[in-house]
Amino acid sequence: MDFTAIANSFVQHYYNTFDSGIAARNNLTSLYRPESMLTWESTQVMGQSDILAAMTKPELATVKHAVTSSDAQPAPGGGVLVAVTGSLAVDNAYDKPMQFAETFNLQPIPGQAGGFFVYNQIMRLIFGQ
Amino acid sequence: MDFTAIANSFVQHYYNTFDSGIAARNNLTSLYRPESMLTWESTQVMGQSDILAAMTKPELATVKHAVTSSDAQPAPGGGVLVAVTGSLAVDNAYDKPMQFAETFNLQPIPGQAGGFFVYNQIMRLIFGQ
Repeated sequence: MDFTAIANSFVQHYYNTFDSGIAARNNLTSLYRPESMLTWESTQVMGQSDILAAMTKPELATVKHAVTSSDAQPAPGGGVLVAVTGSLAVDNAYDKPMQFAETFNLQPIPGQAGGFFVYNQIMRLIFGQ
Repeated sequence: MDFTAIANSFVQHYYNTFDSGIAARNNLTSLYRPESMLTWESTQVMGQSDILAAMTKPELATVKHAVTSSDAQPAPGGGVLVAVTGSLAVDNAYDKPMQFAETFNLQPIPGQAGGFFVYNQIMRLIFGQ
């Protein structure tokens, strides 16, 4: 398994789609399953619909991510652990970027060879300094 | 499984021990196994001895972490995924803290009920803003 290629492909797809607006962002639903978990700034949700609802809140309508680093490792269950850091701008406030750290645990989709879904996702904004 | 309690206990133990100096830090070796992986600022190492070597380099002799956030989720394999953010000071340079993000995938120790080891660990310093 080329875990680095899987991670890089996922990261590019995820943030490009997220940053293409709310309508496009709803296409990310195919990355999630009922057992998927998301912790977004300490708020925990589970399952496709609640996760998509959390990611398409009105205050997140216009977001642009810039990935600084992306590290991947093979994970138990045939998965790929991906840890991303970077900055993001909300509502085109490029003069006020926020730093973020986001972790994804990608796992094989049962019955779909070569397919992965997001089992774990944890997102945090980083302030300070 | 109380994954939040496991994560909180691990985070407190890990950073307290790490921050107690090189000699004490070597006690962290019991958290790792031959299959453990560490990516530290993009450098990848595997197994107890290489991981401990990476964490006890002379330039890391005096480090103090301050944890800002710690999020946990249950992970495949009976594990606990922990994503930590915070700041750290090297060589008592408390006026120049650095932000960091660190992810741990804790997995059950085979044959040791209730015990966990670090399967995946990814550490990144965060600059910018």
